Amino acid sequence: MNVHITGSGSYIPTERITQSYFNESIFFDENGNKLPFSNEQIAQKLFEITGIEERRYASPDLCASDMGFLAAQKAIENAKINSEELDYIIFAHNFGDVKYATTQSDVLPSLASRVKHKLQIKNPKCVAYDILFGCPGWIEGVIQAQAYIKAGMAKKCLVIGSETLSRVVDIHDRDSMIYADGAGASIVEGKETNGGILAHESASFTYEEAYYLFYGKSYNPAKQDDTCYIKMHGRKIYEFALKYVPQAMKNCLDKANVPIEKLKKVLIHQANAKMDEAILKSFFKLYQKSIPEDIMPMTISKLGNSSVATIPTLYDLLVKGELEPHQIKQGDVLLFASVGAGMNINALVYQY
Amino acid sequence: MNVHITGSGSYIPTERITQSYFNESIFFDENGNKLPFSNEQIAQKLFEITGIEERRYASPDLCASDMGFLAAQKAIENAKINSEELDYIIFAHNFGDVKYATTQSDVLPSLASRVKHKLQIKNPKCVAYDILFGCPGWIEGVIQAQAYIKAGMAKKCLVIGSETLSRVVDIHDRDSMIYADGAGASIVEGKETNGGILAHESASFTYEEAYYLFYGKSYNPAKQDDTCYIKMHGRKIYEFALKYVPQAMKNCLDKANVPIEKLKKVLIHQANAKMDEAILKSFFKLYQKSIPEDIMPMTISKLGNSSVATIPTLYDLLVKGELEPHQIKQGDVLLFASVGAGMNINALVYQY
Repeated sequence: MNVHITGSGSYIPTERITQSYFNESIFFDENGNKLPFSNEQIAQKLFEITGIEERRYASPDLCASDMGFLAAQKAIENAKINSEELDYIIFAHNFGDVKYATTQSDVLPSLASRVKHKLQIKNPKCVAYDILFGCPGWIEGVIQAQAYIKAGMAKKCLVIGSETLSRVVDIHDRDSMIYADGAGASIVEGKETNGGILAHESASFTYEEAYYLFYGKSYNPAKQDDTCYIKMHGRKIYEFALKYVPQAMKNCLDKANVPIEKLKKVLIHQANAKMDEAILKSFFKLYQKSIPEDIMPMTISKLGNSSVATIPTLYDLLVKGELEPHQIKQGDVLLFASVGAGMNINALVYQY
Repeated sequence: MNVHITGSGSYIPTERITQSYFNESIFFDENGNKLPFSNEQIAQKLFEITGIEERRYASPDLCASDMGFLAAQKAIENAKINSEELDYIIFAHNFGDVKYATTQSDVLPSLASRVKHKLQIKNPKCVAYDILFGCPGWIEGVIQAQAYIKAGMAKKCLVIGSETLSRVVDIHDRDSMIYADGAGASIVEGKETNGGILAHESASFTYEEAYYLFYGKSYNPAKQDDTCYIKMHGRKIYEFALKYVPQAMKNCLDKANVPIEKLKKVLIHQANAKMDEAILKSFFKLYQKSIPEDIMPMTISKLGNSSVATIPTLYDLLVKGELEPHQIKQGDVLLFASVGAGMNINALVYQY
């Protein structure tokens, strides 16, 4: 039994947030000191480091579960399956439904239950649950779907990644400019045909790294309440990713027994374009190879870091020919890789 | 390969909350009308319906992840395993770490990552993630561990259920008296020996039932802010549970091919003693049997409804001989069953 992605869908939020959105912001450092640069300079510097020119925010009427539903609908349609045949709905997120201009996460019921409700699926044997695994949550959901299929517990699973990071950012922290909203979804099925998932890798680094991404108070010293926001130790994350992600990718490709020359595309989590380029360079260096042209499709410049949504959205755009000049055809081998809060790293080798 | 629970642990919070705790509360109904009874009458009525005399609350210095860690430590010790050998840490909760006297859920990093950090596990291949599946989350985590073991992806898993419901209750809603805090944990291992998990059932009812438990505003009409709390349609949940849980339990026992006479104990989620008794009665009626004596250990009168913690705590107390007069011996068959937010129902037949 091989495990295939038989359909995909994504939802790219409609609110385009350009650098000028931050013109009126007041940015502080982690010690509460006002940054000694103009907001234009801060945005320019951030662009140089991360490659982010724009990001998308969900419109105020939508939460993570709504976007997840929209992506799921497309994935189901794309896979040409009857949604009543789904055995699992696995929803990866990290902050639940955060209503616009509020600070609480609402996960009662789970976002998977909400999507199943909206999809009007009646079959109670379709088990709906959420996972929290940082940005690599969607890949981990696919790995879980694979486990159910291999254990004979499922045939068809819907795996969703959706997040509204824009609603958990500290607007006084320049890192807030990195984060974005979005949703991606896929149908994962067991089939007797060749290809599909050839190998996976998954790891949690917590001994020293657990709190590299954390929930912390505003950098604005005038904000004295208990409200917490997504915070990160960017430098440490960069060094961590460079140290472990390329090797995890290589382990996965070697486990799949795929020679590096056969690798067609690398779909890597988009948190920082420079970091992704450095990871890719280091990955090919492990094989003593230089980087082939057009191997790594990038969306970060226009979509920012949309957490769990990034990779399923990249995949969806790629297979639908919407990521020019990138194209794939049947039999092509893709490598998915992600790193994020936990700190978690995972990878998948997938033959299309 | 059979899947066994090879160790267990629980943490019962130290703060005993008796009925007098609620003497000063002001209770409203869902329409904002003050309840026309004394608080003693309300507490007495609640006791008559649910059997809850006391509940436990976590001390202010502890969050769900701290309690989960304490239970996990005991489970690891009880299973006599080296924690570095764990392949997965699966943490079931629904509200994350809610610090005392605050309203935000903190799940960055995931509670599983926090526990792994506190356990000082270095092995990055031990994958740590959280699941949200309502009160049945711990059983679902065991079902997931079983999938990894059967798919050859894991040998040893730690499954934790921990929750501080006391920190998400509306103190103006009499249902708040039902909820409690706690943590339970188990080590789940693949072994060639007989017994272990014989069958499982799992279902999500979302078409009409998704919002029977939900996040809603305070019943106190004077509280005009956006803060949300755990809320339930108690009557609907009662009817739902009676309609579906007994049949799910029977399906599971029949799937395991265990005759009803062989069933030694039923460990059922404790949200309402009267409901549990009605479920049990209806379950045995499906076999045209009367209820055997001492088949259903109860903890609700002293521990309240501690969500995901209830069943692993029940199991831990049972196997350690701390639930008099209940005892089990090797070879005895247990039936676990749970129902909760989602609305989710699951069951496990387990041979000790």
